[in-house]
Amino acid sequence: MRGVVMYEPGDVRVEEREDPQIIEPTDAIIRLTATCICGSDLWPYRGAEPVDHQVMGHEYVGVVEQIGSEVRTVKPGDFVVGSFWASDNTCEICRAGYQAYCVHRVLMGTIGTQSELARIPLADGTLVATPGQPDADLIPSLMAASDVLGTGWFAAVAAEAGPGRTVAVVGDGAVGLMGVLAARELGAERIIAFSRHADRQALAREFGATDIVEERAEAGVARVKELTGGLGAHSVIEAVGTQEAMMQAIHSTRPGGHVGFVGVSHDVAIPGDELFMAGVHLHGGPAPVREYLPHLIQLIWDRKINPGKVFDLTLPLSEAAAGYAAMDERRATKVLLTL
Amino acid sequence: MRGVVMYEPGDVRVEEREDPQIIEPTDAIIRLTATCICGSDLWPYRGAEPVDHQVMGHEYVGVVEQIGSEVRTVKPGDFVVGSFWASDNTCEICRAGYQAYCVHRVLMGTIGTQSELARIPLADGTLVATPGQPDADLIPSLMAASDVLGTGWFAAVAAEAGPGRTVAVVGDGAVGLMGVLAARELGAERIIAFSRHADRQALAREFGATDIVEERAEAGVARVKELTGGLGAHSVIEAVGTQEAMMQAIHSTRPGGHVGFVGVSHDVAIPGDELFMAGVHLHGGPAPVREYLPHLIQLIWDRKINPGKVFDLTLPLSEAAAGYAAMDERRATKVLLTL
Repeated sequence: MRGVVMYEPGDVRVEEREDPQIIEPTDAIIRLTATCICGSDLWPYRGAEPVDHQVMGHEYVGVVEQIGSEVRTVKPGDFVVGSFWASDNTCEICRAGYQAYCVHRVLMGTIGTQSELARIPLADGTLVATPGQPDADLIPSLMAASDVLGTGWFAAVAAEAGPGRTVAVVGDGAVGLMGVLAARELGAERIIAFSRHADRQALAREFGATDIVEERAEAGVARVKELTGGLGAHSVIEAVGTQEAMMQAIHSTRPGGHVGFVGVSHDVAIPGDELFMAGVHLHGGPAPVREYLPHLIQLIWDRKINPGKVFDLTLPLSEAAAGYAAMDERRATKVLLTL
Repeated sequence: MRGVVMYEPGDVRVEEREDPQIIEPTDAIIRLTATCICGSDLWPYRGAEPVDHQVMGHEYVGVVEQIGSEVRTVKPGDFVVGSFWASDNTCEICRAGYQAYCVHRVLMGTIGTQSELARIPLADGTLVATPGQPDADLIPSLMAASDVLGTGWFAAVAAEAGPGRTVAVVGDGAVGLMGVLAARELGAERIIAFSRHADRQALAREFGATDIVEERAEAGVARVKELTGGLGAHSVIEAVGTQEAMMQAIHSTRPGGHVGFVGVSHDVAIPGDELFMAGVHLHGGPAPVREYLPHLIQLIWDRKINPGKVFDLTLPLSEAAAGYAAMDERRATKVLLTL
């Protein structure tokens, strides 16, 4: 089969890789309908994380081709969506809604789903079948559910977005935009998106943003305070992963409010005294996307949300390198790869 | 009147200070029945915070002597308890339960309640009258409610201690011990106290600890993991304020669990990547003691809890300097000063 390999920073190739095989009786093999490039894939692409001939990709939708002898909940022919963490969905941590920390978890990025086929460990716990074969126009949205939508949703839940709440979103990338959508679906009254890019501002408004703030860092914080009677937002989503973004999120939140952070932290150190004085709740990490998949798939199936709009470039898998370059150069927010 | 002044680190004196006066119509003047020395008073005493002829003290119980023209809820003769933050208890932040961040808050430490009399700003919002004049044996417990009990209670609430939960408590000082008591009152199933001191271990057990762990840092984390099937505690209270204590708390918590931190942070920096991977909830800061005072006073009045046991040395105000020395040298956990 063909699959993406990152040889070194900036060098992405699509090449022949060995077909995956069932290894454990709980595995399934899927044939991918689509995959995509994640903002986190740009860290090694840009040399900010080490990389050496690494298989890439952790997002996936597709059709089950083969199952191990112990798989019960999906069968060949099912169209399925899964998360970037494979999880058993039965351990104590999974039952508490934290499948990204399942005691048996497997990181799909080590398997590499930017490929024609993929082995999915713990298939019963990981994969969720759609109600039927999806129409083609639903594929991008189902693809979004596999990571960015589920991650934005978790961020909004962690930030306790809901009725009567003012939610601010730091980061106008795919996850931040999905955070806007999630906050709206969760009933937030007001949604402030930080963004300086006209196209992303437009998408943020379409997904539910009521206010746009172009200022960053402490100037951005000051604007949020102005918009909230001097108090700060009830709920703030941090979807970048830098020191500036984290402090912008903490300082934009009112005392007793909630920060939900999902940006993969790079060189972030939160000063204890500032956190102490801020009085906010801070929660985040890798999103337990599996927890939200059944609900998100249903919303998509019923055409109540259209998160697939976050993909602004679609390429065949064979042109993955062009997709990485487009995201790296910010010509695309999020790239869908089709098979 | 007499009151405590810290001239410089290590130099505490009781001297004549001017009697407080009503300044705002919302003020009250109280005659203190007791006050006490806080663990946080040791930071300047030890030179870890700057200090120069500072009036000291922020904990207080006593009898209302005089009220401003706008005070409605307390009257001369009432026995009252208040928090270390004066708060209006009516603003949006107070109504959300975060009175320590009241938009009109006044830090009582700037007024200095280690004294015979004290001016209490925002008396209606700040002071809570007891059901009647308390018996003498209730004074230490009511005194504890003013800060350490309320702070430990907030930490336990922030850590979401409750039925079915295993709670670990980092710090065996007065606040940590109150956290143990609070966790028990909130219904925690199992309470693990970190402590190396036999006397504090005994008090922790009396307040509700079911397990004692003597190891610290990562060795302590490993013991908590052993005691919790490898997962970590559901809820962890951090009541120290150092880097080691904060990381011990975060690492002792299972993914999806809650850390409640109330140790005043000194040179703490939380690595973003570790917090991201831990998947815990982190919440803390100055406790909104006022929120809990009515409930805590009732528990004390009904003799359901006896937090006053945390005071292991009682001295007259005139011997405050000896009290500071005893706490500094760890000969006392918490010193009550009587008037």
